[in-house]
Amino acid sequence: MNRSEFTRPVDAKNVVIRDSFFKDLMEKAAHKIIPYQWKALNDQVEGASPSFCIHNFKAAAGLIQAQHGGFVFQDSDLAKWIEAASHMLIWKRDEETEKNIDETVDLIEKAQLPDGYINTYYSLNGIDKRWTNLRDNHELYCAGHMLEAAVAYYKATGKRKLMDIMIRFVQHIADKFGTEEGKEKGYPGHEEIELALVKLYVVTKDPAHLALAKYFIDERGQQPNYFVVEADREKRGYGWARSVYEDNAYYQADKPVRAQTKANGHSVRANYLFSGMADVARECEDEELYKACETLWKNITRKQMYITGQVGQSSFGEAYSFDYDLPNDLVYGETCASIALMFFAHRMLRLSPKGEYGDIMDKLIYNGTVSGMSLTGDRFFYVNPLESWPERNRRNQQFAHVKNERQKWFPCACCPPNLARLISSLPGYVLHTRDNTVFFALYTSSEASFDLPGGKASVSVETEYPWNGRVLVNVKQGFDGMTLALRLPVWCKQYTLEINSQYAETVMKDGYLYITRPWQAGDKIEFVMDMPVMVMRAHPLARANAGKVAVQRGPVVYCLEEFDNGRNLNLIKLPKNAAFAIENDEALGNIPVLSSSAVRETNEGWDEYELYADRHEPKTAPIRARFIPYYAWNNRGVGEMCVWVREDR
Amino acid sequence: MNRSEFTRPVDAKNVVIRDSFFKDLMEKAAHKIIPYQWKALNDQVEGASPSFCIHNFKAAAGLIQAQHGGFVFQDSDLAKWIEAASHMLIWKRDEETEKNIDETVDLIEKAQLPDGYINTYYSLNGIDKRWTNLRDNHELYCAGHMLEAAVAYYKATGKRKLMDIMIRFVQHIADKFGTEEGKEKGYPGHEEIELALVKLYVVTKDPAHLALAKYFIDERGQQPNYFVVEADREKRGYGWARSVYEDNAYYQADKPVRAQTKANGHSVRANYLFSGMADVARECEDEELYKACETLWKNITRKQMYITGQVGQSSFGEAYSFDYDLPNDLVYGETCASIALMFFAHRMLRLSPKGEYGDIMDKLIYNGTVSGMSLTGDRFFYVNPLESWPERNRRNQQFAHVKNERQKWFPCACCPPNLARLISSLPGYVLHTRDNTVFFALYTSSEASFDLPGGKASVSVETEYPWNGRVLVNVKQGFDGMTLALRLPVWCKQYTLEINSQYAETVMKDGYLYITRPWQAGDKIEFVMDMPVMVMRAHPLARANAGKVAVQRGPVVYCLEEFDNGRNLNLIKLPKNAAFAIENDEALGNIPVLSSSAVRETNEGWDEYELYADRHEPKTAPIRARFIPYYAWNNRGVGEMCVWVREDR
Repeated sequence: MNRSEFTRPVDAKNVVIRDSFFKDLMEKAAHKIIPYQWKALNDQVEGASPSFCIHNFKAAAGLIQAQHGGFVFQDSDLAKWIEAASHMLIWKRDEETEKNIDETVDLIEKAQLPDGYINTYYSLNGIDKRWTNLRDNHELYCAGHMLEAAVAYYKATGKRKLMDIMIRFVQHIADKFGTEEGKEKGYPGHEEIELALVKLYVVTKDPAHLALAKYFIDERGQQPNYFVVEADREKRGYGWARSVYEDNAYYQADKPVRAQTKANGHSVRANYLFSGMADVARECEDEELYKACETLWKNITRKQMYITGQVGQSSFGEAYSFDYDLPNDLVYGETCASIALMFFAHRMLRLSPKGEYGDIMDKLIYNGTVSGMSLTGDRFFYVNPLESWPERNRRNQQFAHVKNERQKWFPCACCPPNLARLISSLPGYVLHTRDNTVFFALYTSSEASFDLPGGKASVSVETEYPWNGRVLVNVKQGFDGMTLALRLPVWCKQYTLEINSQYAETVMKDGYLYITRPWQAGDKIEFVMDMPVMVMRAHPLARANAGKVAVQRGPVVYCLEEFDNGRNLNLIKLPKNAAFAIENDEALGNIPVLSSSAVRETNEGWDEYELYADRHEPKTAPIRARFIPYYAWNNRGVGEMCVWVREDR
Repeated sequence: MNRSEFTRPVDAKNVVIRDSFFKDLMEKAAHKIIPYQWKALNDQVEGASPSFCIHNFKAAAGLIQAQHGGFVFQDSDLAKWIEAASHMLIWKRDEETEKNIDETVDLIEKAQLPDGYINTYYSLNGIDKRWTNLRDNHELYCAGHMLEAAVAYYKATGKRKLMDIMIRFVQHIADKFGTEEGKEKGYPGHEEIELALVKLYVVTKDPAHLALAKYFIDERGQQPNYFVVEADREKRGYGWARSVYEDNAYYQADKPVRAQTKANGHSVRANYLFSGMADVARECEDEELYKACETLWKNITRKQMYITGQVGQSSFGEAYSFDYDLPNDLVYGETCASIALMFFAHRMLRLSPKGEYGDIMDKLIYNGTVSGMSLTGDRFFYVNPLESWPERNRRNQQFAHVKNERQKWFPCACCPPNLARLISSLPGYVLHTRDNTVFFALYTSSEASFDLPGGKASVSVETEYPWNGRVLVNVKQGFDGMTLALRLPVWCKQYTLEINSQYAETVMKDGYLYITRPWQAGDKIEFVMDMPVMVMRAHPLARANAGKVAVQRGPVVYCLEEFDNGRNLNLIKLPKNAAFAIENDEALGNIPVLSSSAVRETNEGWDEYELYADRHEPKTAPIRARFIPYYAWNNRGVGEMCVWVREDR
């Protein structure tokens, strides 16, 4: 770990996203998801499972007489909405939304106990029972989300009220939990508070806030295991997870975090933990913790991640399973887990500007996160398969977690708000700085300005990425000694880079092309990445993909759908050296789709009484196969889909 | 349906099995499983889950003061043991076993209530609650198994006591359930009583016994659904199964049985029901019911059965899923379900001597039933996968039902006793008669005698089937006008058939070779079936097997094991036109194993940081692949296995 490697994200305030894939997502967040969610939180959406969020806070504040509704963690839905709306307010002022947030903050204040504690579930179900079930009941999880919301609102508007409310709550938590005499050595069943406390610390600079985050990171997984201690104390069972996941691995609490070498257990919990670990590693300059983060990062991205960026192979526990276990049809691939992996990737980028971190963010934002949302922005997937057979999803209960259509909302409504807060905060992911170097991690049409040690600078970027590999960087203001570093994606094998129409020297290091020169207004970089269609294979140990290939162009992974190719996609084979044609599909948002010659196995020769026989050679008929971007699947009706296609060799 | 088509099994008393695959199984039943199970029933096996069976009956009989132990259906384990032991007594007299049974019968008599009812669960937990939960609590299921046991014991020994005890219980059931005024229109949640009542009827000839079986068959699935009526009456929920399986399809009670066209729901329940339906169709000469059986038979064997005979694709509900859904790794394939399919196949054979029924019994007895037992006869599988990856079974909870080793016993101990009663009754599956025709359904070294309308006859059969296709049938006694019908297996493409060393004319009909002639003592049929190694493919709609082949020789399906071929069996590919060599494997019981040239994909070229890349062509290295019979897998330690292998084309 090298402090001099750290990069700082360019604040969203200083980045304006122009017309682009990102802008389109952001508009959907602003006009669809965020307003819709506000309605949902107020139980105003017909036909959707009631949220009870505002209802709960009103009851906890004593404004209405009512029972708690929804899950124990229902408060977090409100927090995520506030956070998403706050990020949005940076690039889209909206008086009504701000008013709604301010009123909600007042409501939260009324629901806060004198000692700082906030949680509607326990306020309404018996405050004497608070803090008695850290393993299951999500109090610290809700606190963390509300903390993220508070910091986001402050950064967007300068209004401190919610943050001050939460600082009081954090003090309560710090008084309750810790290694000091008189405190409980507890930590949450669902990680989240850790990364949230570091967000707070970055604003407040109060060392106690960082210390509390570090405490939660350090204490987790120590012996004796707190969840066991707590269960014994409360005379409670050890829970379903312990019986199937040894030693509380489901909660990543089977061993201290520094000793963890494999991503294991519930995938959202895990990825939030790893994000918190990276944050603490950075702020504390903790080498050992950093090494653990690197080890876990490598394990995920090299052994347990899908080509579309999904993680969390197993529906049982919504969890990671193990290295190279990557079933395409049975996969859970929770939208929230992909989003959480984006959080982790971003934090790794903050620790060291290696290209691989941007590569994975790229993969996630164009594939495995946004696949969770319909093109219309109002239907969502919780689970994201890489192969779907609707009849099986309906009729074989082992696939019950795979839905045939995206849903309006869910009882456990974590994914849509998570998508909203990721999307509305995208401007903060695009650019990073370190000393006088500006890193272009993600490519999108935008304008940005920077205040670097050596002077002020600003650029505008024009690109049609991810559909086109051409990126124009216009320097509006620069200085001698500034360095611009452009990420060279891992998939890019050929590119040209000219400055002011002339060949330009670059220094390639760890996935970035560094260009140092006396930059001045009017300088124009034209960076053109070759973007051929690529036929991808998986590591031979990833059994599910034996004999199969996937199609990718730039960062975008493609898939076959029944809508274009008919049923029984398993009968389609792509020939060796397939040639691809590109055309635009208007129905899918005017995006490039690919087609290729292929073959389809037929039933020819099989009698209706035969299920197994040795008298048939496989027969095929030539067809044209049509591939669309994976994220755009399931927008034209229910049907089969597959990312990995059989190869005809 | 044509009464004249019906075949009668040659009674086990008249068939002596000689040294053969069957004899070996029967010896294991006699010397291992049946004695072991008796110990288990008496809770005398160290390290095994206690059975509580005898304990429960002693308590219900008032001989000891104790609570009921085990499942609600624990009584059935005892019944199955009595049945298995009874079948055994026909071919192996054993005074001690007979004494144990007699003493157990006395015990059962003491546990029987004055009104005929027998069930230790309710006797010990509150007799007032009996008959209040037909859906879940297995009273009729236990009654059915005890009935089968009673009939088997009577047929083996002539002792009627248990049968008389059960006839009183049957009277109680008939008084309680039926369509007449004052009776409940109930039927069991787990079918079994239906086929058992027909077994009783065949012995007693009491029409009331058949009528009761017919009632249970006819009433099932009628509206209003009895399980819903019962749940409402008892103010109980509708149960987990109803929430996931529409309309009680889990219990095959979603529609009347005659309207059922697909095997659906819990697979053992389903196959027991279909067996009962076939029995009632036969005894009542019910055309409509027969047609339903044929439809269901075809659905199973042509759309939902594995190449090894397993059925029941889904672990969720231990159930059938739907047509062509045949995953090899996720499959449940309960041993009991394969056994129950054997029961169904045998009953279809009794309705009509089509070769396909014997073909499936053949497939089952050499593959998917006996795979449930170790070669040593003392370890068992509940679940039988066609592909197993030990690490995944351990670490991905979706595969938790797939065990890496056979177990000594199980808490739900249904499979070992079912194996025992199937194996010990094998002599009754081998030969059938109809008028003056003798049908050879299964081939095994044996002697048998028949009392046909046209006269007495007897034969001896010598064969090393399934390892060798040569079958010698020696006529010891015959008569003019007798017909011998030899099943021509569906896989057999070439054969010779000579009588007394001369070419013999046969008439081929529906899978049997009929030979009518003036048979006399000394006549010798030499029937030689070509038994080459066959490379099998699955119907193209069976997605799981796309691009794969299975190896079969005669009725025996082969597989690859890690023990012979190393890890990552998914990397092995069989070339087109693979040539196989045969050799004997002593460790596996001196049976033929197969080897073939093959290739294995290597990791060559893949850097350790790569999971997905487009720069690699698959590289292979030549190897020799070794196949062993599927039923013999998992006898040399824990390791991977697969039946379906990638084909290199």
